[in-house]
Amino acid sequence: MKKPHVIILGGGFAGIECGQAFKNKPVDVTLIDRQNHHLFQPLLYQVASAGLAAPEIAAPIRSIFSGQENVKVLMESVTGVDFDKKVVTTQESEIPYDYVVIGLGVKTGYFGNDEWAEHAPGLKSLDDATRLRREVLLAFEKAEVCDDPAERKKLMSIAVVGGGPTGVELAGAFAELSRHVLNSDFRNINTDEARIFLIEAMPRLLTMYDEDLSDYTQKSLEKMGVTVKTGCKVLNVTHQKLELEDGDIEAANIVWAAGVSAPGLTRKLGVETDPGGRIKVETDLSIPGHPEAFAVGDIAHCIDQAGIRVPGLSPAAIQMGRHVAKLICEEIQNPPARSYPVRRQYRYFDKGSMATIGRSKAVAQSMGMKFDGFIAWLMWLFIHILFLVGFRNRIAVLIQWFYSYVRYRRGARIITGVSDADS
Amino acid sequence: MKKPHVIILGGGFAGIECGQAFKNKPVDVTLIDRQNHHLFQPLLYQVASAGLAAPEIAAPIRSIFSGQENVKVLMESVTGVDFDKKVVTTQESEIPYDYVVIGLGVKTGYFGNDEWAEHAPGLKSLDDATRLRREVLLAFEKAEVCDDPAERKKLMSIAVVGGGPTGVELAGAFAELSRHVLNSDFRNINTDEARIFLIEAMPRLLTMYDEDLSDYTQKSLEKMGVTVKTGCKVLNVTHQKLELEDGDIEAANIVWAAGVSAPGLTRKLGVETDPGGRIKVETDLSIPGHPEAFAVGDIAHCIDQAGIRVPGLSPAAIQMGRHVAKLICEEIQNPPARSYPVRRQYRYFDKGSMATIGRSKAVAQSMGMKFDGFIAWLMWLFIHILFLVGFRNRIAVLIQWFYSYVRYRRGARIITGVSDADS
Repeated sequence: MKKPHVIILGGGFAGIECGQAFKNKPVDVTLIDRQNHHLFQPLLYQVASAGLAAPEIAAPIRSIFSGQENVKVLMESVTGVDFDKKVVTTQESEIPYDYVVIGLGVKTGYFGNDEWAEHAPGLKSLDDATRLRREVLLAFEKAEVCDDPAERKKLMSIAVVGGGPTGVELAGAFAELSRHVLNSDFRNINTDEARIFLIEAMPRLLTMYDEDLSDYTQKSLEKMGVTVKTGCKVLNVTHQKLELEDGDIEAANIVWAAGVSAPGLTRKLGVETDPGGRIKVETDLSIPGHPEAFAVGDIAHCIDQAGIRVPGLSPAAIQMGRHVAKLICEEIQNPPARSYPVRRQYRYFDKGSMATIGRSKAVAQSMGMKFDGFIAWLMWLFIHILFLVGFRNRIAVLIQWFYSYVRYRRGARIITGVSDADS
Repeated sequence: MKKPHVIILGGGFAGIECGQAFKNKPVDVTLIDRQNHHLFQPLLYQVASAGLAAPEIAAPIRSIFSGQENVKVLMESVTGVDFDKKVVTTQESEIPYDYVVIGLGVKTGYFGNDEWAEHAPGLKSLDDATRLRREVLLAFEKAEVCDDPAERKKLMSIAVVGGGPTGVELAGAFAELSRHVLNSDFRNINTDEARIFLIEAMPRLLTMYDEDLSDYTQKSLEKMGVTVKTGCKVLNVTHQKLELEDGDIEAANIVWAAGVSAPGLTRKLGVETDPGGRIKVETDLSIPGHPEAFAVGDIAHCIDQAGIRVPGLSPAAIQMGRHVAKLICEEIQNPPARSYPVRRQYRYFDKGSMATIGRSKAVAQSMGMKFDGFIAWLMWLFIHILFLVGFRNRIAVLIQWFYSYVRYRRGARIITGVSDADS
């Protein structure tokens, strides 16, 4: 008998977990991603700030599934899903499915101002991260040989828009990079004069955390030399210029960490989406009217069984991936008679969340408990190392962090991708 | 009193060693390189074959000299040297010198067939290496979904031109990548069917080694699945096609490791060069007629004091850099009266050479002794780890190699730089 065919779209946290949960189950799985690697997104800011090398936070999807014979991996771009014909189309092929699990994640979102993207790129892929690393390091190189004080000031300025975890982590990492890593590298400029801005439209940083943790975060960043502006809306972004309600900031590098939106594909699927383009799902994570189609992870707009809006965090994505795999396996073993019966409902289990601010500083909130400072940082370190995919990466990352911690150095501050002129 | 100003062009092995030898000496040094990093070139093939991450074989030049106050680093492209005015020009500035040391290295050379470059790129920079890694891994991805047997065969073929150390190391590394690393990753293709060609125009591989080591190398590579063609000239290179004397090879990836030539700059300096564009130097490494200008490393064509043509190897570059620094320091302390007296002559000290073939296999030749197999491989490992610049890199590289060795995996097989379509 032909085994049911499950197509998983996307090799992020949700897709990988879902695929792995089908191990030794009587299904054929095809996982499609346009990249060949799973990316440990929570550490992307470390690549952007020269703390880690790109391959250290990524694992080839094929190698994750190399021992799981029922999973086939395709490196292709998904162009559509036909829920009636039960077919996924990619740029290369049309593939029929019995079940489809959509976990394509989200991209940087500009709230309708897509023209800002070229001036304030986001941080979603390894290429984004190595590009940002290159541009920031190049700006310091240019400042070193710049005679114009105004231009030099601009070259030594980095503005991060968005005071969520990514924005906080980026601002802290750039502050440490300029103050403690690059400071003995240059002869003409004083890298302590580098200006790091963190802009947040809401009244405080890390709005999903308790207020005292937000306060701690802001004070810590300010002590590290970051200029934090809360309650401050971005009016416009042009070349190296951020127009704010209370004046302009000129910065050679502007990073956008203020919002995400679903890929354009979701709006072409004929399903209900939220204003960010996320697919609205039932509490079993299926797409309304298409019981054999599911959306998981950041791309899903889900109100769980307890009425909680599931946040766009990796633990939620992992839980959702696992939930759908379990549901599909149960259904295969006990096929529904004619219509789908009442199915296993998804309930978000909030393990808490954490953000690192810098060397020995982090905030964490879990199960009603709150932590800040060194203990939160150790928790952050432990959990992130634990979840890094692949033995090699864990050890290599640990050593690099230990080295950076002890010696205040960053080994990965290498500029690549600059065109090679013959000289 | 103003200290003499020494400009070093190039942060390769020669330039770095030269700069470091000026530590605590009464000179001001400016080191100019168009890249921000020193590259450990002997391990570049490891990045290309997904064994190591790019930052692991590079060190920021600024960080190498961060503790040496008399060295200033500029990231600029050198456009000329005026030996009469004693001025170096870059794209940004004109800098006067008292001494200039040219150590700009060499680039891939095509013996006058520069149009082959686009079809058979070389391996000289980190960008070359990550590009080659991407193209090879992408070819396997395309082969996995390819229905046309001829096309699939081409996609799974890699041709390496040039049987010197780089060619041997690349061919061996690609053979291991396809046979032992990727073999459990794919479902449709059998990566054991990947074809790796190594083409050499001379009658044997590694011509600078004794014949029995060449034989050992060829037999080892053949056992690993490499098709070795010696005494075989390349007639033409077109898109994915290598035209040889005894027929054509179709391969999605063709790598050129058959020759080098000096950068175009040397021919504009008004100095004598060899057919490869290398600057002919006196036995003290100065440029004839310009006693305060020197050429060191691969860019120098040098017959040493003993009449030996100094080879283009990193130990020679290191020795030459050190020699020139010593000579300049001596001259500053005892300035020559009117004309330059008889100076310290350079003599090449041949420490021997080594090339790795694959897991546990290498050849080495030193001080009249010859080694092959596991012992040569251990020597290779020890020496390469020893000379890797920077503590972090040494440990990180050792761990990665150990991991690859024990588990036959390569952590860095990440495809980056593919354009991100919205999907």
